[in-house]
Amino acid sequence: MTTSVATGINDSADLAPRTVAVVGLGLIGGSLVRGLARLPAPPRVLGVSPDVDDREGAQRHPGVVAVADAADVVGEANVVVYATPMNVILELLPLHARLFREDALVTDVAGLKRPVLDAARRAGLAGRFIGSHPMAGGEAVGFDGGRPDLFQDARVWLCADPPREPSRSARLEAFWRALGGSPTWAEPDVHDQLMVRVSHLPQLVSNSLALALEFAGVAPADLGPGGRDMTRLAASSPATWTDLIEHRATDVAKLLRELGIQVGELAARIEAGDIEAVSELMVRTRDWRAGSGDSTGRTSP
Amino acid sequence: MTTSVATGINDSADLAPRTVAVVGLGLIGGSLVRGLARLPAPPRVLGVSPDVDDREGAQRHPGVVAVADAADVVGEANVVVYATPMNVILELLPLHARLFREDALVTDVAGLKRPVLDAARRAGLAGRFIGSHPMAGGEAVGFDGGRPDLFQDARVWLCADPPREPSRSARLEAFWRALGGSPTWAEPDVHDQLMVRVSHLPQLVSNSLALALEFAGVAPADLGPGGRDMTRLAASSPATWTDLIEHRATDVAKLLRELGIQVGELAARIEAGDIEAVSELMVRTRDWRAGSGDSTGRTSP
Repeated sequence: MTTSVATGINDSADLAPRTVAVVGLGLIGGSLVRGLARLPAPPRVLGVSPDVDDREGAQRHPGVVAVADAADVVGEANVVVYATPMNVILELLPLHARLFREDALVTDVAGLKRPVLDAARRAGLAGRFIGSHPMAGGEAVGFDGGRPDLFQDARVWLCADPPREPSRSARLEAFWRALGGSPTWAEPDVHDQLMVRVSHLPQLVSNSLALALEFAGVAPADLGPGGRDMTRLAASSPATWTDLIEHRATDVAKLLRELGIQVGELAARIEAGDIEAVSELMVRTRDWRAGSGDSTGRTSP
Repeated sequence: MTTSVATGINDSADLAPRTVAVVGLGLIGGSLVRGLARLPAPPRVLGVSPDVDDREGAQRHPGVVAVADAADVVGEANVVVYATPMNVILELLPLHARLFREDALVTDVAGLKRPVLDAARRAGLAGRFIGSHPMAGGEAVGFDGGRPDLFQDARVWLCADPPREPSRSARLEAFWRALGGSPTWAEPDVHDQLMVRVSHLPQLVSNSLALALEFAGVAPADLGPGGRDMTRLAASSPATWTDLIEHRATDVAKLLRELGIQVGELAARIEAGDIEAVSELMVRTRDWRAGSGDSTGRTSP
């Protein structure tokens, strides 16, 4: 497929894309399709999924065409967003590298940015690729789990290898702002280290707690609002997460091991009747949670 | 203060109370006051709190009078609800036992029911007291944290020592149904064992995770929706929780210790590159979370 001459010339001067390819139509891709379809001047959206139900769901939205093979459409898009599990992105980038338009902005939504940036550089995409990571998600899976407002008020981390390409940076910021997100630049390694703490660790703690509750004979229906909050992530997609955890296995294991020890020490104190330790812990974490402490990881734009 | 003859005679035949005392005007008490004030035929509400701000907040609602000392008002109420930390309930019940009306229904909202039922029995209140435990809560504290719909669709556990008094049982069920809750009877010891798993354990896991994140230099503003879910309980009231944990210290310590070991084992597997273990864990807990397994703990009404 080819790009029409009429749309090809002045796109780089125009922050709003005319054609967006969304590769992967799960929770995030499904939310992108819905959010883009709702824009005042919606772009043409080319959705990609191997799943026929997800494709049919996407095509119910105006201006959306969905196909099974990304190679058929990525060459038409001004903006290409990869919204698949990270290892799939790492496989697809080199396969698609020669298909993209010269002026294309290529991005992704994976939870780690260093592996994707490295793959983009190896594929010769350094100038065209900027990584994105919207801090948004949900329990639902598949296209039907998407929501047009999923990115509303969500921080969206943006990461690029230097030198950053100014016009594409502005286009990517505008892309996420149009969907309600708050783009925030970070160094990729700083971003990834932060995610191990704020994302990988809570994910695996939720899984571990859910497993403990299953062992203890608890049914999800027995949970109150607090228990439901604490096990919501336990329903997250294994396909999304195993890649992310594998890529940071050493750091994740270290944090988990320290948490396991900390939990064991708390158990010992409670067993010894040291209820003051519980009180101190709860006061401390309540104060931490209430704090409006500055975000780490952010770099100046 | 005395009960008027006009309201005293036929109350026990009438499921809707004319006067409700709410002892404690925090999140739960504040939600009770708001919910009761919204009923089609709102009762007179007598609120009790040592905190002048909470009393003033309560008195802004129509039909609500708030005082500092429960002993001044509990004798006037058809229904008395204790919504203080559990150890305060254990102290107040014997002090108030001789003040209650003969036909009063006395209840509470503490997260454990055996200690409260034992205190009620020792105070000679066996017939008049039935314990309640609404599975509802939130991050906010104090009267201002209350919401009129807090109990909407919430399970409300009801526990009594046998023989259960039928008319008071019906009145208590009607009380919670009017506020939108789903009353469910349970044996007190079964309830308490369940709460250690579905409530105490997730609470302390949230605190432990929050502490680990603080140690790792994370600010709450860095969290995404998942991390926020996982640390929401870390902002819970220490006053509420230390009592509950102390009363079930052995069971809580056992579950925590097992979880700590399980987390340590997961760390070891991840470090060894056994990503299949992560995948199996995630698939298993996703399936558990999606399951509509029957609730445990419930007894026939």
